[in-house]
Amino acid sequence: MSKVVFGVDVGGTTVKMGYFDLDGNVLDKWEIPTRTEDNGAGIIPDIAGSILDKLAQSGIDKSDVAGIGIGIPGPVKSDGTVPVAVNLGWKDINVNIELSKLTGLEVKAANDANVAALGEMWRGGGQGYSDVVAVTLGTGVGGGIIIGGRIVSGSTGAGGEIGHIHLEDNETEACGCKGHGCLEQYASATGIVRIARKKLADSDKASVLREGEVSAKTVWDAVKEGDDLAVEVAHIYGEYLGKGLAAVADVVNPEVFVIGGGVSKAGKVVIDYMEPYFEKYVFPGAKGAKFALAKLGNDAGIYGAAKLVLGE
Amino acid sequence: MSKVVFGVDVGGTTVKMGYFDLDGNVLDKWEIPTRTEDNGAGIIPDIAGSILDKLAQSGIDKSDVAGIGIGIPGPVKSDGTVPVAVNLGWKDINVNIELSKLTGLEVKAANDANVAALGEMWRGGGQGYSDVVAVTLGTGVGGGIIIGGRIVSGSTGAGGEIGHIHLEDNETEACGCKGHGCLEQYASATGIVRIARKKLADSDKASVLREGEVSAKTVWDAVKEGDDLAVEVAHIYGEYLGKGLAAVADVVNPEVFVIGGGVSKAGKVVIDYMEPYFEKYVFPGAKGAKFALAKLGNDAGIYGAAKLVLGE
Repeated sequence: MSKVVFGVDVGGTTVKMGYFDLDGNVLDKWEIPTRTEDNGAGIIPDIAGSILDKLAQSGIDKSDVAGIGIGIPGPVKSDGTVPVAVNLGWKDINVNIELSKLTGLEVKAANDANVAALGEMWRGGGQGYSDVVAVTLGTGVGGGIIIGGRIVSGSTGAGGEIGHIHLEDNETEACGCKGHGCLEQYASATGIVRIARKKLADSDKASVLREGEVSAKTVWDAVKEGDDLAVEVAHIYGEYLGKGLAAVADVVNPEVFVIGGGVSKAGKVVIDYMEPYFEKYVFPGAKGAKFALAKLGNDAGIYGAAKLVLGE
Repeated sequence: MSKVVFGVDVGGTTVKMGYFDLDGNVLDKWEIPTRTEDNGAGIIPDIAGSILDKLAQSGIDKSDVAGIGIGIPGPVKSDGTVPVAVNLGWKDINVNIELSKLTGLEVKAANDANVAALGEMWRGGGQGYSDVVAVTLGTGVGGGIIIGGRIVSGSTGAGGEIGHIHLEDNETEACGCKGHGCLEQYASATGIVRIARKKLADSDKASVLREGEVSAKTVWDAVKEGDDLAVEVAHIYGEYLGKGLAAVADVVNPEVFVIGGGVSKAGKVVIDYMEPYFEKYVFPGAKGAKFALAKLGNDAGIYGAAKLVLGE
């Protein structure tokens, strides 16, 4: 009978690692650096070494380990193959096979954003639900879609790329994806700054945002203080985000959206300005979806990776 | 060992029925009227009677029947409960239980659009794929989403309501859902007529569409003849549809879209005018989705219903 499960979240700078009991209580967590030199050839051996060390230190027998789940920053095929992971320097690596060979343990790999969504469903803001869309409002806008408790990874690994839903025909600046008018161009941390700068330039209204640096944080702080211009920015932000999430709900009609990422650190105010627009634009039969803030922060990945092994 | 499976597709006017071998070859199909009087109280007994008659006539033993799958025009919960089906007069009916009681056979009910999508995946335009979005371009625009071979019915039965994705901020007319600027307002049969009428009014260009009635059929016929104005209409139509399906692909990234419904009777030309716009608006990682025409027409429902029993 296995008693613990490992969760690994590979990032471009550090690899987050942890192990859990089968109910999802974290027993230990730590990080190791991601060695991207030599096309990231050392990453999997480093992870294997760290897990084997941890087993030796803690006196856990391999027969007590359900397996290793692992989130990768890139598309992952169902057999564990990663065709390309730019941030790691990887090309055509089968993570399941390689990491299993070095550890003697069962390995399950999946895309990191999807894995984080699974973590939020298991032990975070989406706990108790099985149809969950996790939305990450960070430097970009990412998504992870869970239906019936299972990740929707998509036929080419692009499931949940909700940041690139086209919303604005009149956009002149290009998105990172080369498109114009993607949700990400408005709803990301840089997006809200862009909206605020435009508003500041177009208006003569006094605002605390005219003093000092404009960031996602200073905008939401000003909104909370009741700054008029910042409130206008929040409405524009909320309308884009609400319209985008309405499109997502028209497709998969989830029980709950779990909102995470840097912008969501402002708290429930982000949901408050978005939700009326969501309700305005969504199909009536899909109204009433719940919105919750993500709870696991940077640990969502290791939780979700562990859950991956225990069965989505 | 069961040898046959029944598929039933309940519509507002007729109930389509058929039975199949386990590979999906239709052995017989027929229709009975839908008796909606008395809040549709006779519908399930009529279906049960027709199936029992068919078994008697054909000498099939109940032990040879895998079960009855049935598509319902309304939301269906996973236990077979239909909270409301307006076209049938139903309220809070558990189809699985009621039809099973009258036939002694296992019954599985689901929403008709989703069931039709499953049919197209099994034996129609989506054959060989397991991540399929079926798009119905008819009086309205409907969708059925299949991921990993399983229907995405959505938490409130509104999965696949892609006709109500918001696309146009400048729309003044209301959609049937009371929203403004839904995909359905452009990509349905009435949608293309609306686009054509507007184009005819705004332009002085000669066109065969100025003679006689404007319908989805006459527009596409004119496009095929190279009528300039009709081609402009087809581009507008294709841009809305491509933009809407791109949003769907950004969410679930299917292998294939199967295009059916009245408008699709024009054939591949509909896909040809849509696909370049899909590629323009979709996230680069989701480019290259396949597009196929639906093959089963009005029989998609009975095929999909049968497949429902055999396991999604």
